[in-house]
Amino acid sequence: MSSLPDHCDTEIRVRYAETDQMGVVYHSNYFVWFEIGRVELCRQLGFEYKKMETEDHSFIVVANASCRYKRPARFDDVLRIRTRVADSQRRTLRFAYEVFNRNSGELLATGETLHVICDWLGRPKSLPEKYQKYFLATARRRSDRASVRPATSMEAR
Amino acid sequence: MSSLPDHCDTEIRVRYAETDQMGVVYHSNYFVWFEIGRVELCRQLGFEYKKMETEDHSFIVVANASCRYKRPARFDDVLRIRTRVADSQRRTLRFAYEVFNRNSGELLATGETLHVICDWLGRPKSLPEKYQKYFLATARRRSDRASVRPATSMEAR
Amino acid sequence: MSSLPDHCDTEIRVRYAETDQMGVVYHSNYFVWFEIGRVELCRQLGFEYKKMETEDHSFIVVANASCRYKRPARFDDVLRIRTRVADSQRRTLRFAYEVFNRNSGELLATGETLHVICDWLGRPKSLPEKYQKYFLATARRRSDRASVRPATSMEAR
Amino acid sequence: MSSLPDHCDTEIRVRYAETDQMGVVYHSNYFVWFEIGRVELCRQLGFEYKKMETEDHSFIVVANASCRYKRPARFDDVLRIRTRVADSQRRTLRFAYEVFNRNSGELLATGETLHVICDWLGRPKSLPEKYQKYFLATARRRSDRASVRPATSMEAR
Repeated sequence: MSSLPDHCDTEIRVRYAETDQMGVVYHSNYFVWFEIGRVELCRQLGFEYKKMETEDHSFIVVANASCRYKRPARFDDVLRIRTRVADSQRRTLRFAYEVFNRNSGELLATGETLHVICDWLGRPKSLPEKYQKYFLATARRRSDRASVRPATSMEAR
Repeated sequence: MSSLPDHCDTEIRVRYAETDQMGVVYHSNYFVWFEIGRVELCRQLGFEYKKMETEDHSFIVVANASCRYKRPARFDDVLRIRTRVADSQRRTLRFAYEVFNRNSGELLATGETLHVICDWLGRPKSLPEKYQKYFLATARRRSDRASVRPATSMEAR
Repeated sequence: MSSLPDHCDTEIRVRYAETDQMGVVYHSNYFVWFEIGRVELCRQLGFEYKKMETEDHSFIVVANASCRYKRPARFDDVLRIRTRVADSQRRTLRFAYEVFNRNSGELLATGETLHVICDWLGRPKSLPEKYQKYFLATARRRSDRASVRPATSMEAR
Repeated sequence: MSSLPDHCDTEIRVRYAETDQMGVVYHSNYFVWFEIGRVELCRQLGFEYKKMETEDHSFIVVANASCRYKRPARFDDVLRIRTRVADSQRRTLRFAYEVFNRNSGELLATGETLHVICDWLGRPKSLPEKYQKYFLATARRRSDRASVRPATSMEAR
């Protein structure tokens, strides 16, 4: 299990369509980027999110979403989306995100989303067993580590 | 049949999210507005497009879309989307659009979309009979009129 | 001052473009609707937000945004976006939102955004005096009322 | 000059946010992808589009946009956007696009956009001389080739 990644870094380039007349990225787009981070984290954990929907009829429905904006992102910037499993229960998953400017290394935003596992009619259900190993293990490992060494600024959010 | 509307006018207000760093509306949003026009035209013709999907499993899939941009639309502008059935066949529908600034009356853009009627697996099918009266009648009436009086600039597109 | 509205209700109709393959509205769109609510609240308070940008070079930059999703919104639903000034300081504004399904009356989502007043280079500044009366009065009045009668479920968020 | 690329291939992965309730990509997103293709083509030609705006106050404003949809794109698909300069004049640029599914190789869509070079007030102007070499050369070379050997299906659009 120790080979499961703790977090996932994905890079995206800011699209012109994502800017607004203030000359920076419109704020709702960060939530779209968070979703890209989740999908890539799933891939690195070992499965494809789309199959969770099509094969196991399990949907990760957003129940809560928040973002803190620290510095603006601009057209053509290359961003690094860092995604972690912040918490994992049988019926819920919580992800945490950091958005960095890849070139400057600056932290542009942090965010969190809480999800409820649902069937395709939108009714809550348990995370199918085959996926529990990915999320439960990741969350457990993180809390283990948290207990033995002090949190860095990265982990402290 | 003569009570079927020839076109449908819908008003929308430009959202901040629809602007880009040029300070005007990003061009792909016009296609979203065209879709709003189609949906309202259906409502004025006498049915709800969503029921065409849910009750009759008929989807109006976009096969072709084009737009000519004449003048920019800006944040908070109120626009009038004028939508017409440009042509109607058993398996295809063509809509034409004009986007006006409501206050100035200026024509900002014109567009067209061609659609294929599909089942929910994406396979082409005929327009269900119950909907044919709306579209075929509208298209027929328009070509009748076109033959008896000269087209105005409005109809000439 | 007592004529200043306490909140603003705006109606929008869900666009096809706002849905995703789960068959419901994609979650980031709620933040776009919140912005529509803010803009309409400004108009009801007595000014146009766009002029705050163009004439006074004051931008309401998003510093924080969050949303709790309770029930899904679907294509063609008519929604009521209720917007209030939750708090107002010289350099920051906080808005609170509720999204209702107009027909069923169901509460679909609640949200909040925190904004920093910035100049056009993105540097924090004070809210221009001419706008302070709108926001400070609204926030003061709300806290006055809160002290004399118990908060209803609507005001308690 | 012979080292200037004839076309540019960029890869993107379909975002969940780009799908609609039909289960496929909503059609307006293709125009956003075309823009990604243009920006990458500029980079491969040797300059950054964003500097054309910030340093030379030249904006490539969309005057015309069209797309033909042949097969649907789906969530998580990796797409290849192929972009070419279709025509180049002093004041206008025309780009052509093809969207392929990278894995299957299938052609999903083709499109075209016509652009007018404008200053930052939206007034038409000539393409600054420093950029003419990129576009004029590319377009000239393409027409040279077209005259000596028969167009393939790729070039014939």
